[in-house]
Amino acid sequence: MTGPLYDRVALIGLGLIAGSMSLAMRAAGLAHEITGHARSPETRATVREIGLVDRVCDSAAEAVAGADLVVLCVPVGAMEEVARAIGPHLSPGTTITDVGSTKRAVIEAVAPHLPQGVHFIPGHPLAGTEHSGPRSGFAELFRNRWCLLTPGPDCDESALTRLADLWRGMGANVETMDADHHDLVLAVTSHAPHLIAYTMVGVADDLRRVTNSEVIKYSAAGFRDFTRIAASDPTMWRDVFLNNREATLEILGRFTEELFALQRAIRTGDGAMLHSYFTRTRAIRRGIVEAGQDTDAPDFGRLPRRGG
Amino acid sequence: MTGPLYDRVALIGLGLIAGSMSLAMRAAGLAHEITGHARSPETRATVREIGLVDRVCDSAAEAVAGADLVVLCVPVGAMEEVARAIGPHLSPGTTITDVGSTKRAVIEAVAPHLPQGVHFIPGHPLAGTEHSGPRSGFAELFRNRWCLLTPGPDCDESALTRLADLWRGMGANVETMDADHHDLVLAVTSHAPHLIAYTMVGVADDLRRVTNSEVIKYSAAGFRDFTRIAASDPTMWRDVFLNNREATLEILGRFTEELFALQRAIRTGDGAMLHSYFTRTRAIRRGIVEAGQDTDAPDFGRLPRRGG
Repeated sequence: MTGPLYDRVALIGLGLIAGSMSLAMRAAGLAHEITGHARSPETRATVREIGLVDRVCDSAAEAVAGADLVVLCVPVGAMEEVARAIGPHLSPGTTITDVGSTKRAVIEAVAPHLPQGVHFIPGHPLAGTEHSGPRSGFAELFRNRWCLLTPGPDCDESALTRLADLWRGMGANVETMDADHHDLVLAVTSHAPHLIAYTMVGVADDLRRVTNSEVIKYSAAGFRDFTRIAASDPTMWRDVFLNNREATLEILGRFTEELFALQRAIRTGDGAMLHSYFTRTRAIRRGIVEAGQDTDAPDFGRLPRRGG
Repeated sequence: MTGPLYDRVALIGLGLIAGSMSLAMRAAGLAHEITGHARSPETRATVREIGLVDRVCDSAAEAVAGADLVVLCVPVGAMEEVARAIGPHLSPGTTITDVGSTKRAVIEAVAPHLPQGVHFIPGHPLAGTEHSGPRSGFAELFRNRWCLLTPGPDCDESALTRLADLWRGMGANVETMDADHHDLVLAVTSHAPHLIAYTMVGVADDLRRVTNSEVIKYSAAGFRDFTRIAASDPTMWRDVFLNNREATLEILGRFTEELFALQRAIRTGDGAMLHSYFTRTRAIRRGIVEAGQDTDAPDFGRLPRRGG
């Protein structure tokens, strides 16, 4: 490493992602000082207690003063309020980015509040766990994960390069793409799957003839895989759906169409259709394992922990 | 241990489950001899090569001759043919069980072909991985997993106790329940989730505006969790859906109803509804982790393997 990439990084919102960023930046020596602000006094107290950032500030304005990088780590629905609060305190030349799961809505919420001369480069690290809050962060969260940056057409090249280097320094692979394309890709790979998982878990919870204890006891037969993503942070996900509405609804429409076709095949006993469908989906799984985005260990590698 | 529970166990069908049973029975000394038969000559050759059972037979009739326990480990759709083939070769006092994912259909397919004096106790170990075939078996597969037995009203008590002891000896927890209730419980915890996962993966595969390489690259954002179960054996799953048709379609109907309600909340911007729904589903996840049916490690414990 050639020394810190940024002199002062301000993290606004101190949950899983900000906490992991702070730990990863420290581990790799990427920032000289890391300041942080969270709206809730409890979160600020926790962050002070565990020493997650160098300096906890009681206002976002204080945290961003003198920062050369500001990272918005709040739910998408809170971005506008934060941008409005910090806008007047940003100096020209500062880079501002975010980690929100939707990009077009964040651009619309944040850009109008930024002064001239600030480099706004929206971002989205595709990393996370089902846990939330500052205590859930860890330095390796971004390792071998993708971070998508969606710079506008007038983006400053050197600011973009520096931000990409920061993400690479934290272990991520970086790709840039258009904000609208990002929102569609994520509707497929993340937003629709989350909504579907939430739905399936909700159905199971509702079903009166099967008790909750049965659902839980026998979850290893498949249902369990849905519950992890359906345990994700409710506020974050509410905001994702409200802010990537059209792309998510489009994918859900396609999903319903396909589901009806498969239901019909079950009802009419069309075994050939089912078999060929299930054979096709197997190939996608192989691609994911080969791309290093999952482990090939059976059962997600859960078993070895119990074995022996 | 008090010595072998069975003198000769015959495994018909030699894939993941049979292979794991053989290894688990050997590890715990539960059977004096294990015979096996698979329809495909390639599978028989593989099983001989890796020594997965004590004696590989070229016909199911030969494998079951003299066995005091016969385990049908073929896809549900192949049960009837196997039962027809082995029925005349079963001796009174023999216990016959299966490992099929649906129970009412297996009972209807198998029972008519069994001679008097044979103890038929349908079973279903809730264990598996996305891999299939004899090379995918391992002795710990059933450890801390449930095995559901669905004995009929006239079931021989001592035969039932002995079979339950076998499953416990392989590490499983055993529960008995009515076959129809089993089929409904599994429709919720396994069959509907699998169909939904297959559907979501199929939609992603179809979408022309997002390339397959993008779907694969960015899968860690949620989609990945669906692909594991959508990589399961196509023949087995075709048979599951065709043989647990009504319960699966009922659950899918409920699922669609709920999905439409959530889609409507997204369309109308009903954030309160979404937030309360997502908060409720989180509690189920906690229950599953507490019940020891999953690990609380973030991201299914995938990260530690990559970390460091």
